[in-house]
Amino acid sequence: MKISLLLTGNELMSGDTVDSNSAYIAQSLKDLGITPYVKKVVGDDLPLLVQSIQELSRISDVLVINGGLGPTVDDLTALALSEAVGSPLQRHSDALKHLEQWAEARDFVLTESNLKQTDLPKNCEIIENPRGSAVGFSCEHDQCLILCSPGVPSEFKLMVEQQILPKIKTYGNINTATKITRLRLFGVTESGLQDIVNQKFPDWPAEVNLGFRVQMPVIEVKFTTIGEAHNELNHVWANKFQSLFNSYVIGKDDTRLSQALNTALADKSMTVTTAESCTGGAIAAGITSEAGSSAVFHGGFVVYSNEMKQAMLGVSPQSLETYGAVSEAVVMEMAQGAINVTGSDIAIAISGVAGPTGGSPEKPVGTVWMAWGSKQNVKARRFFLPMSRLIFQRTATAIAMDLLRREVLGLDTDVDYFSELKKKQVLKSEAF
Amino acid sequence: MKISLLLTGNELMSGDTVDSNSAYIAQSLKDLGITPYVKKVVGDDLPLLVQSIQELSRISDVLVINGGLGPTVDDLTALALSEAVGSPLQRHSDALKHLEQWAEARDFVLTESNLKQTDLPKNCEIIENPRGSAVGFSCEHDQCLILCSPGVPSEFKLMVEQQILPKIKTYGNINTATKITRLRLFGVTESGLQDIVNQKFPDWPAEVNLGFRVQMPVIEVKFTTIGEAHNELNHVWANKFQSLFNSYVIGKDDTRLSQALNTALADKSMTVTTAESCTGGAIAAGITSEAGSSAVFHGGFVVYSNEMKQAMLGVSPQSLETYGAVSEAVVMEMAQGAINVTGSDIAIAISGVAGPTGGSPEKPVGTVWMAWGSKQNVKARRFFLPMSRLIFQRTATAIAMDLLRREVLGLDTDVDYFSELKKKQVLKSEAF
Repeated sequence: MKISLLLTGNELMSGDTVDSNSAYIAQSLKDLGITPYVKKVVGDDLPLLVQSIQELSRISDVLVINGGLGPTVDDLTALALSEAVGSPLQRHSDALKHLEQWAEARDFVLTESNLKQTDLPKNCEIIENPRGSAVGFSCEHDQCLILCSPGVPSEFKLMVEQQILPKIKTYGNINTATKITRLRLFGVTESGLQDIVNQKFPDWPAEVNLGFRVQMPVIEVKFTTIGEAHNELNHVWANKFQSLFNSYVIGKDDTRLSQALNTALADKSMTVTTAESCTGGAIAAGITSEAGSSAVFHGGFVVYSNEMKQAMLGVSPQSLETYGAVSEAVVMEMAQGAINVTGSDIAIAISGVAGPTGGSPEKPVGTVWMAWGSKQNVKARRFFLPMSRLIFQRTATAIAMDLLRREVLGLDTDVDYFSELKKKQVLKSEAF
Repeated sequence: MKISLLLTGNELMSGDTVDSNSAYIAQSLKDLGITPYVKKVVGDDLPLLVQSIQELSRISDVLVINGGLGPTVDDLTALALSEAVGSPLQRHSDALKHLEQWAEARDFVLTESNLKQTDLPKNCEIIENPRGSAVGFSCEHDQCLILCSPGVPSEFKLMVEQQILPKIKTYGNINTATKITRLRLFGVTESGLQDIVNQKFPDWPAEVNLGFRVQMPVIEVKFTTIGEAHNELNHVWANKFQSLFNSYVIGKDDTRLSQALNTALADKSMTVTTAESCTGGAIAAGITSEAGSSAVFHGGFVVYSNEMKQAMLGVSPQSLETYGAVSEAVVMEMAQGAINVTGSDIAIAISGVAGPTGGSPEKPVGTVWMAWGSKQNVKARRFFLPMSRLIFQRTATAIAMDLLRREVLGLDTDVDYFSELKKKQVLKSEAF
């Protein structure tokens, strides 16, 4: 089955936007055993779009068009499809209903530009878009199923899963039962994982396709088998992998680090508090990004200056003076202070040099101290994350959440993270 | 001048590799005033490659082919070009010399696979590759200059700068200069912008290309003119646009909302503090994501429970009891409390129903109160953002930063944001 992709948008041609949608749908098609045939990208150019739709629908069984569904004059997909297949545009009642509901839910007044999104080629079927204002639409032409979808990645991805893949399966009469197991790991690198797998599983079966995908800060590992006969094999090898990497596995499917932490806390009926300097509130924001976090988190502190570390958390001026703000003593006192004020069961405290300035020979940019634990048992550890400010903050936030997850679950917290990752240490640190 | 790109490689089709080469050359071509015409990506498929070379060379002045120059059997570019232009492969002496020198410098013994890289279509010119073993090559066909280049990004980038761009310039006799102005706006929608531009500027000149790009939470507006003769036109119309949208413009180029806020605070030597419930620390994290934020931010509070609102900020139990946590009275007291503890010049306080549960008929999910201002002058306002939890938190965080930016700069804070956007109100809210 030949599936081609046509992406449209000046921003894709100018290099201002990096296209992630085509990689996403390609990965999803892989589960059906299909690799896209041709991918073509063109700007907002009507004759070129019309010609490309005609060319690709002639050589493909399915054509997925992405982008150009918006309300502005440079959004040309509906018009181009209308010309390519010879079906005039007309206002589509289902599309209009969708747009009106979308607007009403947002207290949004529709304009003429918006209404243009509901003018679609006659005889098109609409493809529901649960997230955005623009519906997708599909038709058949030249024995090719043409599916038009919005360029906004969050909208596109949901529509691929819920609508586009099922339509392709039905159209192509595809019934290869694919089994996919997905695990998410934190704290190991992609190449580290591959090396360990090669070394520990020289007999990895060809039927179980092993794929890695970095989804910062976690890595997704996907085990894919095609055909029901291989379901058991999928199960067995995914389990072997999970046992090997043990505490690095934060969960299945789309588990987020913040979600794994919230679940662990809720399961143990524990509460957590945060005392953040260099991450500036990002750990608290991560925890509270999860629904239901009010059960495990009551309050936290962003203590950026030395004065606020004293005023808000009772850190001693002596410790700040003697050891500096980025020190074991200060993060220990920050953690204790946060527990004292909030009465939470455990705390995490963090203080580091996020950069780009503020480093010194003893404490270069990237140095960070974290303290975590309960009132009776606060531990501290130094990390070195010499990265850009943004990546430093994201990585430190993720490590902090993982330390808390491990603490709550009673897992080893003396593990290697990224910069300190030595292959041998990883191999040692788990009981293989 | 029409320049098309043809990328080849199974790894590009499967989505395992994200193509960065085409964005790189597109950005380089921008300086010549050129946006690529068509980009096509195909796997290692000989008939498809031959057909694509023929098609693209027919409709383009220049065709850049990328990938497929390696030593393995799936590297098909030279063979495909040979068939497409009807010029047989033969061992190319310059290519052989390059390969031998490359191998010698690396103490590397050449194999038959390597030598295959020196079999090129007759009459091709080679394009030097200072980094890798595979030379590029070029020929003319159908009045189109065809340039073949390796897929390895580091090799490709160097060759674009040193060889490919100069060849394109010479071939096209190009000496134009492009002028691009970029502005970033917050608080208006893409469709709203387009409608207002259509209405207010019916005489918008065709020479000034106007492009919109949503980069949540901001919108980038790009004004592009080609040729030095139009530089002034670019300047004049970008200014007209900026005057029209006035306070919605947060800055030029890549300005972030957090950056605009930090800059405004630093310019006025002011400090800010945060008292966050439903955003859980995201406003503080946004402010402190900027380098140098310690000058304008000393500390902030995440007060998720009613108890913490009282303990950390001194919110009165009576207000919480009478009006509830999501209320004007409580956010006003939160803002005052944060200023009292930190001594900051201004504060923002926020409390809302992020969902997915916790709503009521009077305060449905999406309801949010914000209070902001100085100790003597705290104002409050209710917003309604009925979105997913994640988007609610991101949007509320962005609005909070924008309210602070407007407060510091003395701009109107009674503006429309997204869900409350009514076309007429936007038109009224600025002095056109």
